[in-house]
Amino acid sequence: MQIQFHYMEYSELIKLLEETVRIPFYAILGKLKNNLIYLATSEGEISIYALIGGKNVKLTKSPIAISTRPKSSLDFIPFARDVEKGKEIHAIHIANLKGEEFQIESPRVRISSLTYDDKRIVFTGSSQNETSLYVIENGKLSKLTTIPPFSFVTDVNEKYIIGSGVLKGNPRSQEFFIADFSGNIEILTPKEGSVTNAYYLMGNKVYLISDYETPGESYWIYIYDIESKKYDRVEIPGFEFKAIEIYYDPEDLLIIAKKDGESRLFDNGKEINTPKGTISGATRIGDEIYFSHSSLVSPHKIYKVSRYGKIEVVVDNRKVDVGEVEYVKVKTDVEVPTWVIKRKIPGNTIIYIHGGPWSEVDNSWNLLIAPLVLAGYNVIAPNYRGSTGYGSKFMFMNIGDAGGGDLRDVVKVRDYAIETGITNKVGIMGYSYGGYMTLLAVGKEPDKWDFGIAGAAVADWVEMYDLSDSLFRGFMEILFNGKNIDLMKERSPITYVRNVKVPLCIIHSQNDTRTPLNPVMRYIQELQRTGKTYEFHVIPNLGHAIYKVSDAIDILLPALIFLKKLEEQ
Amino acid sequence: MQIQFHYMEYSELIKLLEETVRIPFYAILGKLKNNLIYLATSEGEISIYALIGGKNVKLTKSPIAISTRPKSSLDFIPFARDVEKGKEIHAIHIANLKGEEFQIESPRVRISSLTYDDKRIVFTGSSQNETSLYVIENGKLSKLTTIPPFSFVTDVNEKYIIGSGVLKGNPRSQEFFIADFSGNIEILTPKEGSVTNAYYLMGNKVYLISDYETPGESYWIYIYDIESKKYDRVEIPGFEFKAIEIYYDPEDLLIIAKKDGESRLFDNGKEINTPKGTISGATRIGDEIYFSHSSLVSPHKIYKVSRYGKIEVVVDNRKVDVGEVEYVKVKTDVEVPTWVIKRKIPGNTIIYIHGGPWSEVDNSWNLLIAPLVLAGYNVIAPNYRGSTGYGSKFMFMNIGDAGGGDLRDVVKVRDYAIETGITNKVGIMGYSYGGYMTLLAVGKEPDKWDFGIAGAAVADWVEMYDLSDSLFRGFMEILFNGKNIDLMKERSPITYVRNVKVPLCIIHSQNDTRTPLNPVMRYIQELQRTGKTYEFHVIPNLGHAIYKVSDAIDILLPALIFLKKLEEQ
Repeated sequence: MQIQFHYMEYSELIKLLEETVRIPFYAILGKLKNNLIYLATSEGEISIYALIGGKNVKLTKSPIAISTRPKSSLDFIPFARDVEKGKEIHAIHIANLKGEEFQIESPRVRISSLTYDDKRIVFTGSSQNETSLYVIENGKLSKLTTIPPFSFVTDVNEKYIIGSGVLKGNPRSQEFFIADFSGNIEILTPKEGSVTNAYYLMGNKVYLISDYETPGESYWIYIYDIESKKYDRVEIPGFEFKAIEIYYDPEDLLIIAKKDGESRLFDNGKEINTPKGTISGATRIGDEIYFSHSSLVSPHKIYKVSRYGKIEVVVDNRKVDVGEVEYVKVKTDVEVPTWVIKRKIPGNTIIYIHGGPWSEVDNSWNLLIAPLVLAGYNVIAPNYRGSTGYGSKFMFMNIGDAGGGDLRDVVKVRDYAIETGITNKVGIMGYSYGGYMTLLAVGKEPDKWDFGIAGAAVADWVEMYDLSDSLFRGFMEILFNGKNIDLMKERSPITYVRNVKVPLCIIHSQNDTRTPLNPVMRYIQELQRTGKTYEFHVIPNLGHAIYKVSDAIDILLPALIFLKKLEEQ
Repeated sequence: MQIQFHYMEYSELIKLLEETVRIPFYAILGKLKNNLIYLATSEGEISIYALIGGKNVKLTKSPIAISTRPKSSLDFIPFARDVEKGKEIHAIHIANLKGEEFQIESPRVRISSLTYDDKRIVFTGSSQNETSLYVIENGKLSKLTTIPPFSFVTDVNEKYIIGSGVLKGNPRSQEFFIADFSGNIEILTPKEGSVTNAYYLMGNKVYLISDYETPGESYWIYIYDIESKKYDRVEIPGFEFKAIEIYYDPEDLLIIAKKDGESRLFDNGKEINTPKGTISGATRIGDEIYFSHSSLVSPHKIYKVSRYGKIEVVVDNRKVDVGEVEYVKVKTDVEVPTWVIKRKIPGNTIIYIHGGPWSEVDNSWNLLIAPLVLAGYNVIAPNYRGSTGYGSKFMFMNIGDAGGGDLRDVVKVRDYAIETGITNKVGIMGYSYGGYMTLLAVGKEPDKWDFGIAGAAVADWVEMYDLSDSLFRGFMEILFNGKNIDLMKERSPITYVRNVKVPLCIIHSQNDTRTPLNPVMRYIQELQRTGKTYEFHVIPNLGHAIYKVSDAIDILLPALIFLKKLEEQ
């Protein structure tokens, strides 16, 4: 006789996690010499691929951190790679269509943006003390000038460098810059207080996306002429979509326009009938248009549109049964656009908080949400005030109020979940700013939650500020509307540890340089001292960014097991 | 077209872990009214079972922490259960053959031993300040007397309470005591400096196991007569085995005798032909003898020996293919008895360090070793100096030298593994004192290892001493031959963090009160500060002791995934 009993099966859950996380991501970057260039995770790490003669060729040898828009006339593309185990100290490399890869001598800095042409590579890099604009030409590196920390370079030609950022010290506006190779830099805006980004350079013409004519609302495409110093609206016959995000390729005449978390693709003003969801990239090669697409319920695929409008899949993906998706606007003192992914069987619910905060959950395949849904949880993802995708007015609502109104939005969405009967038990989960919101929510609104899962969280803004480099000090000075230590303290989860009531699962990477481990370690010690129930997982040799499928598994595995254990209790 | 790639499969590994850890453990405790009573983990938690009319009946409702020898004439058995989420604050309960369970009012202390008769329950309990002998009679609790912290009660009748421990302040000897219900306590030994344990009381006769006639070597059974104050050797015709551990049941006339990590069973002096391995318990019921048995390669089973000597399995278990077992003695300045479990395919090797230190790896099924072997690793388990099972001389070699000679033994066994070609890569792993040895080894002998896995480790003896209760301060004062702070500091892993070279996986339970989390948290902060590669997992709502299969999975899962990741690099 043998006694046996059925226990929970972690192994089945982890199999599901492994299968889900491995579903590859695809995003078209553009083309090199008429070969489609795209980012993908098909072989387990973020890599640049080329579609050469119908074959998918991996151009990069190990994970990449920063890519750029390829220049169609060239046969190579630069990129940056983390060379310090997740600490986001980057080295610049070049990959070419022959599958060769070369490292270029570059400074030991965090690279936040990168562009190039046939002769030079230009990038922004942050050290502990400053953020600078660098150029590499004929193998020679020069630091052109220091610039405000929250600046990003977007294009370069033989005369100019363009980019954008928070350049005039007003956290509620964004300007663009034009620099030359002597280090002169001019900061420009079509209208003070507008959000204007320069992203494409064609001779003397700078392509801008700006909300200056419809402030805080929708965006349009403009050209700034460097010689005449004049702004001109780009008129595209037939295209009248009031987009919040817009990308116009003046070479390809393609527009990707986005609103309410979904995007549409236009060929010279004429809409292409793409599936519902978001377009992660598009380019024209000869007579054909390629675009990469996904939604919350369907993983990324690459499609080709023939000259006759026939759409076919060029790079396919797994089919998954994720559940039903609903898009609702939950009313607080603002409207909170919220994605609800329901399982067919009602179960526990996770309020999933995206990072950023200047980011969004849109209708695209989400590496962190998909495994939760497939493991049987309802997931509700609010785009709390401060999220992107809903105009700059909405986005700037968190300036000087991080962890204030945005937290109220999140709590209201939680109440909505309870009221509409989607769930009885509800927890909160997020990574980065989402991890921050999770820890803050369980401390400031302890009765609202049954559990919390925080990855790469901010536990103490004050200590984090002291540990940050130029870029992230800049980020915090925007978010808190200056170096506002009192507000940082009031909005830090460590201030509310004693109120925590529910089990926490805290996951943090050892080498995270955006949200460093040290303040989280202190938060853990406070949880321990005050006798709270928590689990804590430190992941080795990893930083804030996830470059590999196995990294994502390492981060999500403890979270899924934590959820499973809660169910068994 | 769809791109796919084969990654490592955590899920397969975890399935193997779940299957292995669920293999139940069986240990016969004795009998109640001719019903076999045994401990088992068949239903996922350590429970007391009875074999009633051929049926296995679970008598306890949730995991138990401390059991005792059942009294054959009674129909109930007391036990202690952790009631503070792993903090080892215990409450006493009674279970009976009807499957009922009652809680008895008891103090908020750590119970280290427990016995009973028809009218009373006696136990030793440690608070922060002291260790005491308690009695519960007619539902009334009284503290009889305080006793030295390292004392354990073993039997009681209407007149006396007996027990043993380090009672005279000499860490290299053990004495026994006889107490009465007025709180009088007499400390006795047949010979100063011997190791003598009193374990069974029959009227005025106290049964002892002692090495006083063969000091430091083998043990024999004696009777101490309380009235005449005389010691008598118990002669058992035909039984001449020189055992290191011995258990004699004077009611059943059964002996379990152990030496070199294996045990033999004797029925009134006549050996029973049990399988190779160890006997975890035995009892006689009517004409039949029951015994529980396992070995490093075969899980626990319960056997029945008929009056005609026929042996049959009464409670069976899974068959597993664990590998080949070898028993060697590795020479240092002592001989280190070592178990070598080899996989058929040579692979990486783990030097597994048992806890205690007063414990051993013997030839019995081992919850921590089996999953490693089944996952494909060679496991080598040294019984370093200080281990039990090899006489008191060997056992006392670590007094005043914890982390000294024992570490040299462990390093030598590692060299043996390399020299005999069992492995190329070798790591060290252990729980509790084994976790301590792991952290000490990677700090003091950093070139000897490729990785380390430390569970429930001691990182700093000095801080641990300050955080400990009476029992564990007592333990440390024995191990360090007094409150020797300088030696504690010199032998603490935290002193050697800067030397660490290899990846570490550190696993610790939140509520551990034997090896508390705080010093380990400081050790982690030092690893972080000095830029070492480590992972760290804090397990919630769990203490030092493992009561449930799921707890064992929670502890082992990060270790196995860590090992898998090392392989992939």
